[in-house]
Amino acid sequence: MQELNQIIQEINPLKEEEILKTLNHLNQLTKPPGSLGRLEDLAKQLSGITEELIPDLSKKAVVVMAGDHGVCEEGVSAFPQEVTPQMVYNFLDGGAAINVLARQAGAEVFCVDIGVKEPLQHPNLISKKVKPGTNNMAKQAAMSKDEAIQAILVGVQVVEDLVEKGYSVIATGEMGIGNTTASAAILSALTEIDIEHAVGRGTGINDEQWKHKQRVIEQALQMNQPDRKDALDVLTKVGGLEIAGMVGVILGAAKFRVPVIIDGFISSSAALIAYNLCSTSVQYMIPSHLSQEQGHQFMLQEMGLTPMLYLDMRLGEGTGAALCFQLVDAALNIMSEMATFQSAGVSGANEEMTNS
Amino acid sequence: MQELNQIIQEINPLKEEEILKTLNHLNQLTKPPGSLGRLEDLAKQLSGITEELIPDLSKKAVVVMAGDHGVCEEGVSAFPQEVTPQMVYNFLDGGAAINVLARQAGAEVFCVDIGVKEPLQHPNLISKKVKPGTNNMAKQAAMSKDEAIQAILVGVQVVEDLVEKGYSVIATGEMGIGNTTASAAILSALTEIDIEHAVGRGTGINDEQWKHKQRVIEQALQMNQPDRKDALDVLTKVGGLEIAGMVGVILGAAKFRVPVIIDGFISSSAALIAYNLCSTSVQYMIPSHLSQEQGHQFMLQEMGLTPMLYLDMRLGEGTGAALCFQLVDAALNIMSEMATFQSAGVSGANEEMTNS
Repeated sequence: MQELNQIIQEINPLKEEEILKTLNHLNQLTKPPGSLGRLEDLAKQLSGITEELIPDLSKKAVVVMAGDHGVCEEGVSAFPQEVTPQMVYNFLDGGAAINVLARQAGAEVFCVDIGVKEPLQHPNLISKKVKPGTNNMAKQAAMSKDEAIQAILVGVQVVEDLVEKGYSVIATGEMGIGNTTASAAILSALTEIDIEHAVGRGTGINDEQWKHKQRVIEQALQMNQPDRKDALDVLTKVGGLEIAGMVGVILGAAKFRVPVIIDGFISSSAALIAYNLCSTSVQYMIPSHLSQEQGHQFMLQEMGLTPMLYLDMRLGEGTGAALCFQLVDAALNIMSEMATFQSAGVSGANEEMTNS
Repeated sequence: MQELNQIIQEINPLKEEEILKTLNHLNQLTKPPGSLGRLEDLAKQLSGITEELIPDLSKKAVVVMAGDHGVCEEGVSAFPQEVTPQMVYNFLDGGAAINVLARQAGAEVFCVDIGVKEPLQHPNLISKKVKPGTNNMAKQAAMSKDEAIQAILVGVQVVEDLVEKGYSVIATGEMGIGNTTASAAILSALTEIDIEHAVGRGTGINDEQWKHKQRVIEQALQMNQPDRKDALDVLTKVGGLEIAGMVGVILGAAKFRVPVIIDGFISSSAALIAYNLCSTSVQYMIPSHLSQEQGHQFMLQEMGLTPMLYLDMRLGEGTGAALCFQLVDAALNIMSEMATFQSAGVSGANEEMTNS
């Protein structure tokens, strides 16, 4: 707990001075001021994070945290639990959607076993198992507070190792059959949103199963009584090991001043925990896509984040975040490659006609 | 007119058989069916367009049509008209936002002078000037019907030349000070939307100028009385030469079965004309971003298109479309690189629990 508090204390706000320098540069480029919208916001955020006008963010990492969920006993997912380890091997062999999209973006995938039920072995696997899957939250707390903290610290450590190897931008990803149930429970526990709106179809359950999933979450919340004002308590009681790991990735990114791209519903449940533990951490987050999981928009709203990609995706793994790397690249390329009004001999706006 | 009608008659619907083959392949990949959302839709559309399961769309082109607008006399833009030729040279020298984003996407920029007021010369410029800028639509028709058709045919010819050179996916782009005025007039003329909602701030005018712009458009519509049921009449009376050129690019792409990515407000006004001339052409369009120009969403709705990128951009040039190339690549990479359930040894969903 002390180590976690220490990390949170080391998270500082973005550098305003660098943001102003970036804005000043953007306004000299051959385009109406602000006309590149979110790309300009991104350029400002990236310089505020890194304290550099045009940082080199070419070494990109996707961290995929994998863990199992005891609540699968209740039949909340369309896929059997054995799919978690099967997909981990698929990630390690390069055949999953996240591998394809990361490759396209020039990013590397790092897969962490933080809580898969089965024993796993693979030369490229980062083995940091805290516990072989969570407990069934419909019957008891998903994990102990110590386990939750331990899993968060795994995430921080993974980021520290990546930063040491020169990685400069990180995307969050995850795998864990049953983890939309945990994420919806976190959303319900931390906000005023009712369960019906927090819970989605996950990987594709039917109406009957969807109602069952809502009842299971209701039972888990009743049973555990997580404290809305204590995000760590919520994570412990109704979270997941991979979610805790991602909380650590986000806090670690903020500590080491590295931009972190947040994927969809499950990643955002981790972001929501991180935000509640340390509100400054949101300044380091780059929202990516809006998931088809209906609860996702509420999570993002809660943190004041607005997605950029609307692709009706609902796969997780970090796939939406990986598609966002190119927007990061675009923001930096605009900063470094565009001509200025002066260099290109282009006339500026008639200031009497504008608001600027 | 006969040549244009001939082109329209040569536009055929997508191949359903190829779309079904693509869907079948997508459903074998290691992900819940449909969970990649719009990327899966894109994969289906691309194969329906090209009649290939996984087409090679590596040769990418952005066609930037440049033209001037007589209506600038009325003081509708924050930027002086001289910026049109200045920006054309900026495109040709590689310093504009579209050059940066096209380069990042591995696309080439082709700049066409279809109606710039000033004489222009540059080795890389495609010189196809139909007329040195439109007439002031607040006082007379922007152009003659013959000129509008000629400009459309320029666009078709540019696509034909690109297809001959092996380009396989095209993004629309444009430059023309005053062209948000023409686009808003087209939107008002073709739909039931009132002028206040059709007209935006363009490159950044203030409240007073915005009201003035609305009055100018109202006057142009009063003066010209474009026939809502005749898109060519609308284009002729309140359109632009670069808009007509883009109509040709879109119809040409549909004729030659090439996917065409539609940029923002001005490109979409061309798409709306193309759609009204030939509704099948919409099947070849890939919507990209939602512009900050408030009329853009109405245009897309009118065609049943939904944007994928929400970046609050309002620059034009093809910048939003260029960012969409990566989504096209992602759709194709998913099709060609992902493991199947069988090849990766991953279990499928419990069918009793799903709707599929």
